[in-house]
Amino acid sequence: MQQLAVLNDKIVPFEKLQPVYLDRGTFFGDGVYEVVRSYNGKIFALDEHLGRFAASLAAIGIENVQIDQIRTRLLTAFKKAAIPNAKIYFHVTRGSAPRNHLAPEALKPNFFLTITELPENPDAKNNGIAVATHPDWRWKRCDIKSLNLLPNVLARRYAARKGCDEAILVDDNGLITEGAASAFFAILGRTLQTAPLSANILPSITRRYVIKAAENLSLQLIEQALSPHQAARADELFIAITTYDILPVVRFDDAVIADGRPGKYVKSLIQEFRKFTL
Amino acid sequence: MQQLAVLNDKIVPFEKLQPVYLDRGTFFGDGVYEVVRSYNGKIFALDEHLGRFAASLAAIGIENVQIDQIRTRLLTAFKKAAIPNAKIYFHVTRGSAPRNHLAPEALKPNFFLTITELPENPDAKNNGIAVATHPDWRWKRCDIKSLNLLPNVLARRYAARKGCDEAILVDDNGLITEGAASAFFAILGRTLQTAPLSANILPSITRRYVIKAAENLSLQLIEQALSPHQAARADELFIAITTYDILPVVRFDDAVIADGRPGKYVKSLIQEFRKFTL
Repeated sequence: MQQLAVLNDKIVPFEKLQPVYLDRGTFFGDGVYEVVRSYNGKIFALDEHLGRFAASLAAIGIENVQIDQIRTRLLTAFKKAAIPNAKIYFHVTRGSAPRNHLAPEALKPNFFLTITELPENPDAKNNGIAVATHPDWRWKRCDIKSLNLLPNVLARRYAARKGCDEAILVDDNGLITEGAASAFFAILGRTLQTAPLSANILPSITRRYVIKAAENLSLQLIEQALSPHQAARADELFIAITTYDILPVVRFDDAVIADGRPGKYVKSLIQEFRKFTL
Repeated sequence: MQQLAVLNDKIVPFEKLQPVYLDRGTFFGDGVYEVVRSYNGKIFALDEHLGRFAASLAAIGIENVQIDQIRTRLLTAFKKAAIPNAKIYFHVTRGSAPRNHLAPEALKPNFFLTITELPENPDAKNNGIAVATHPDWRWKRCDIKSLNLLPNVLARRYAARKGCDEAILVDDNGLITEGAASAFFAILGRTLQTAPLSANILPSITRRYVIKAAENLSLQLIEQALSPHQAARADELFIAITTYDILPVVRFDDAVIADGRPGKYVKSLIQEFRKFTL
């Protein structure tokens, strides 16, 4: 009698499995993550991201993680990588153990981080992107930035099949929550409208800076979810996402937004946002 | 300039990462799984589990997986392990690639399987278990057996803190969907009641055999979701789960069910179920 594992087509003794194969991140998505970026060698909003990360860890009850240690590891690797415009991804999972919904007590969390070069995407920024609506199939605690992202992946796959760069998620009430991996905004007249933060919305860091930028432009903020019908008739639309801050949206399902070119306020918001990153 | 990864406290070049560290199963829970068991050297309901697995793969658009190849790998490992009462877990993820919601085309899926000894649990079967209700925070496609199981883990953690073995999930309408890792049944008079299959319910294989067993006992099946109030007043309760088939429930939140001992029908159902496994 011998407990075994199979890795693709290779049989190995269970007890010889590397811990990474028993990561609760894979079995359950039992972990939380963040994405941070740098602009010209300077990491943007690191403290806010680490603060949100600590909140996500607490929300799912992963303890014994030192945020200062993560900051140190991140900064050490960032310095060593020497990538001016870097995408920094990191996650912590509850740890590695034979699969059981209930983790053993005092499991040691796993930390994983990558620093990769962030490709420039001037086309999307200058010309805008197309988005497609998809039902919001996500769980009820999207305020936690967890590794349970299959509904986001499926929505993105759907959008890609429609020739779109992002999926915009619509809840059971017919209202837009957010993008599959972004916050969603509309400009109507001199107002900036987006869904209010709730258990169904990720508290986006980029959203905070967009709102600051809008204040600088004297746009009025309305925190109220839009219907797809309202969005399709907005003067301007855009998404906010850590890696590319603001990306104009020029097509929403079959509707072309305004004249199909990024509008004046979104262009101004991009300029304002840039000042925060210097 | 050098793309890097950090594994716990070790910095490694990004291109030196083993593929397992870039598994979309970990980044997104972008995969599906099954759990099968054997009784005295005989695997139970393998074809049904492989059929459901194929349906899960199709639902999330993972292609190029040969179910016959998985069957062969599973049977080969099962024979080699020679564990009479084995728990066989397996999953397929969309593959390994640098993290991006949209996977590269033609990614090679990853297969992972373990065969471990299933511990006997006569106490739970003979004396029954306690369960605690928890809000159903899961995504809207629980008919797909995916790796997005964080809400299930959180519900189980809550139940464990309450001294319970399983969490019973309650939806926004105040109705019970199923357990965190089980189907949920009530017996009222000579009827067997459980939630109907829908997008919010996993099409449990064990459920099918429970329903067959109930037919053999001339119990009438009612497929209608129960409220916690109704469940707490049922004559008998039980959960159905691959690893332990039927486990009587004798405590439901603060309510003791009947006299706090497994009832006559659940005992008969356990006997009927046993016949299927011989």
